[in-house]
Amino acid sequence: MADLIQPRTLKGFRDYPPALMIPREAILQTARQVYRSYGFAPIDTPALEYTEILLGKGGEESDKIIYRFKDHGDRDVALRFDLTVPFARFAAQHVPALGTPFKRYHMGPVWRGENTAHGRFREFWQCDFDTIGTTANAADVESTLVIHDLFQAIGFDRFEIRLNNRLILTGLLEHLGLGDKASAILRCIDKLPKAGHEAVLEEMISLHIPAAGARQVLQLASRKGENREILDLVEGEFGANAKVQEGCRRMKELFAIALEAGIAPERLRLDLAIARGLDYYTGVIFETFLLDLPGIGSVCSGGRYDNLAGLYTKTPLPGVGASLGLDRLLAAMEELKMLPGAASTAQVFMVRFPGVPAGKYESWCRQLRLAEVAVELFPEEKKIGQQLQYAEKRGFRFAIIAGPDDFALAQFKIKELATRTETVIEAGMLLAKMRQFTGIKYPE
Amino acid sequence: MADLIQPRTLKGFRDYPPALMIPREAILQTARQVYRSYGFAPIDTPALEYTEILLGKGGEESDKIIYRFKDHGDRDVALRFDLTVPFARFAAQHVPALGTPFKRYHMGPVWRGENTAHGRFREFWQCDFDTIGTTANAADVESTLVIHDLFQAIGFDRFEIRLNNRLILTGLLEHLGLGDKASAILRCIDKLPKAGHEAVLEEMISLHIPAAGARQVLQLASRKGENREILDLVEGEFGANAKVQEGCRRMKELFAIALEAGIAPERLRLDLAIARGLDYYTGVIFETFLLDLPGIGSVCSGGRYDNLAGLYTKTPLPGVGASLGLDRLLAAMEELKMLPGAASTAQVFMVRFPGVPAGKYESWCRQLRLAEVAVELFPEEKKIGQQLQYAEKRGFRFAIIAGPDDFALAQFKIKELATRTETVIEAGMLLAKMRQFTGIKYPE
Repeated sequence: MADLIQPRTLKGFRDYPPALMIPREAILQTARQVYRSYGFAPIDTPALEYTEILLGKGGEESDKIIYRFKDHGDRDVALRFDLTVPFARFAAQHVPALGTPFKRYHMGPVWRGENTAHGRFREFWQCDFDTIGTTANAADVESTLVIHDLFQAIGFDRFEIRLNNRLILTGLLEHLGLGDKASAILRCIDKLPKAGHEAVLEEMISLHIPAAGARQVLQLASRKGENREILDLVEGEFGANAKVQEGCRRMKELFAIALEAGIAPERLRLDLAIARGLDYYTGVIFETFLLDLPGIGSVCSGGRYDNLAGLYTKTPLPGVGASLGLDRLLAAMEELKMLPGAASTAQVFMVRFPGVPAGKYESWCRQLRLAEVAVELFPEEKKIGQQLQYAEKRGFRFAIIAGPDDFALAQFKIKELATRTETVIEAGMLLAKMRQFTGIKYPE
Repeated sequence: MADLIQPRTLKGFRDYPPALMIPREAILQTARQVYRSYGFAPIDTPALEYTEILLGKGGEESDKIIYRFKDHGDRDVALRFDLTVPFARFAAQHVPALGTPFKRYHMGPVWRGENTAHGRFREFWQCDFDTIGTTANAADVESTLVIHDLFQAIGFDRFEIRLNNRLILTGLLEHLGLGDKASAILRCIDKLPKAGHEAVLEEMISLHIPAAGARQVLQLASRKGENREILDLVEGEFGANAKVQEGCRRMKELFAIALEAGIAPERLRLDLAIARGLDYYTGVIFETFLLDLPGIGSVCSGGRYDNLAGLYTKTPLPGVGASLGLDRLLAAMEELKMLPGAASTAQVFMVRFPGVPAGKYESWCRQLRLAEVAVELFPEEKKIGQQLQYAEKRGFRFAIIAGPDDFALAQFKIKELATRTETVIEAGMLLAKMRQFTGIKYPE
């Protein structure tokens, strides 16, 4: 016999066994439903693209982390490292035919050959949604509502969407005569939550930003209070700048409409310290925090940009959207004990007895499935105890136990595995009872 | 301005715009539901693996088509070319802890640098399901039922699952003294439907298979008739061979149980000419044909094997399963005009008028979404005609048209876009009416 090959995955990659994959599928399905409820439509793009396309912006960082190689046709190809760049390429190619506004969601794996410290994986899933082809504030408002509905639908109660608007920050910097240093300053502001006021001030001064201006920026960024109050204050002080004014107007409208649409006011918080260093954001900015686990950072981030696909087309494509970090969210839910841990997709387990024709079990199982009750039938005539052990290990809620005697009496025993309580029901009631037990309501 | 990068995909790769992606998501969701209704649980494995793992069997063919390269850590890595090899590796690693029987489904993209002729893609999706750790015929029966339910749930009426059993074929060859030529003969038999009786006979003779034996094999493989009849005949002639006998017994039981479970008999057809050249099948074999498009070949194939993971573990893992070829199926559905062609995920479109506060629209839309009616609100106050044009292009079924006058009268106009019929309804009836129009029933 040949030597065995050691079964293993690459460093930074992992398998998803059922206990991890069932929650992942649940979140993906929830995201799909929420995105669809607003009319976002799914797209997909290839995992492999021309390297030239993916590295378009030529960021050194991307260059280092990208999985890049020559294919069979000697093409320089690479695995996508996010879903934004492929979407930009897609938009340049297809949006002329598809028309705007174009609202898409895209969920799939991306690959980055990064350092695997801090629980980072080299393959992870992103779930993006974007509205492109419109500068309307309505799209900013809608993106906020989508993020809200998404976290509510996943099952979070204590979360907060922190919002800012680049127009306010850049307008303010212009007003203070610091417009040419905007990028450096925005990157400094991003460090505020972790590094603190003093350290960031020092860094700004070391970057030759005048101390007075730096102090003013930091004071503004740290302002706490009710959203509307802060905006009124900022407008009062800096409203002479047209960008500040427009930024404040859009944010006020956003908060007002969200409130009118029924979003709890504490879910949305203006935070002028969110800058999101990426140069391409130009308007509203989103970050989403789980209040019971703020340390993991934002689990859904995004914002408005002026030009998605400038590398591939001369048609300007403004848009707004956000990206859900699926793996970070799953890790958070695991820590918050929000994952059920079951390794079964069905709630009902059917025990198989010797002496009962297999067709009997199969036909009852089939009827249950037609009544929308998922049921697993054990394939072997093992001892009943062994079968029930299997069912408990997999996390089934109910076992249907019916041997030759029960079939003779036209009855089924239903065992609730956690409590070990047993109920005997007439055969004719099986479908109705199992629908009731598993929480499925009869249609009218 | 810098030169633009030409937006394009690699040869053999393609984008999925909404009109193609919406049906793909629908099929995946259907497959998920069917697999789950039998208790199959999802898993996922990395796209990238050690090349050694993926090429384990060292097939020259795999070696040629695999996307293989050195990663940042100089590891020899490759993209998975199917879901079976990763599952074998996964099973060797995890099944000891997960326990058996283990029933999993796995849906995801695979990559092959193949010739792109005949509409073949280099990236395509597979949807596999398998039951491992049991040799019970119950698992063969269940796999058949899963394939049946899958095609029925996707919406096919005219399809046929063709079954065979390797035990019958190999037992028969043993009986005829041709056991040592089994692999070559099975590969010849696979060519029967395309090449025809005479050509295959000639090929077999050219391979030094005795003409008498070759004739007998081909005669048997071409036998037509009712499933039970053929099996009785085969058993009568060759039942002295233990493998033939066991193969016939398992197949008879399979057909009998499927019938008892309520499967229409014409959906399952014994076809002794299906050999599926792959060496690793050892028992039942499945192929699935769309009767209105038989030329595209089998859209769901699989079978029973004795040892899934022999390259990675000494523990024998027998199993049975099948793989749905998603892209081939989508192409078939497109040809059969089974794809709706809509590019919208919502059925209802809300027009936005100037002079109505945005919050009014958002709050009605939010109520509709809470009532499970997906609705898209146009983001801009464009001319009503332009908004309706957009809605028609996207394939919305209904438009809700409400301007300032309608809000004053507490009413909405509902336009069915295909027929251009308009209904006026009271505001208080909006949720109920839209649920009714879009086919959602009220819960009790």
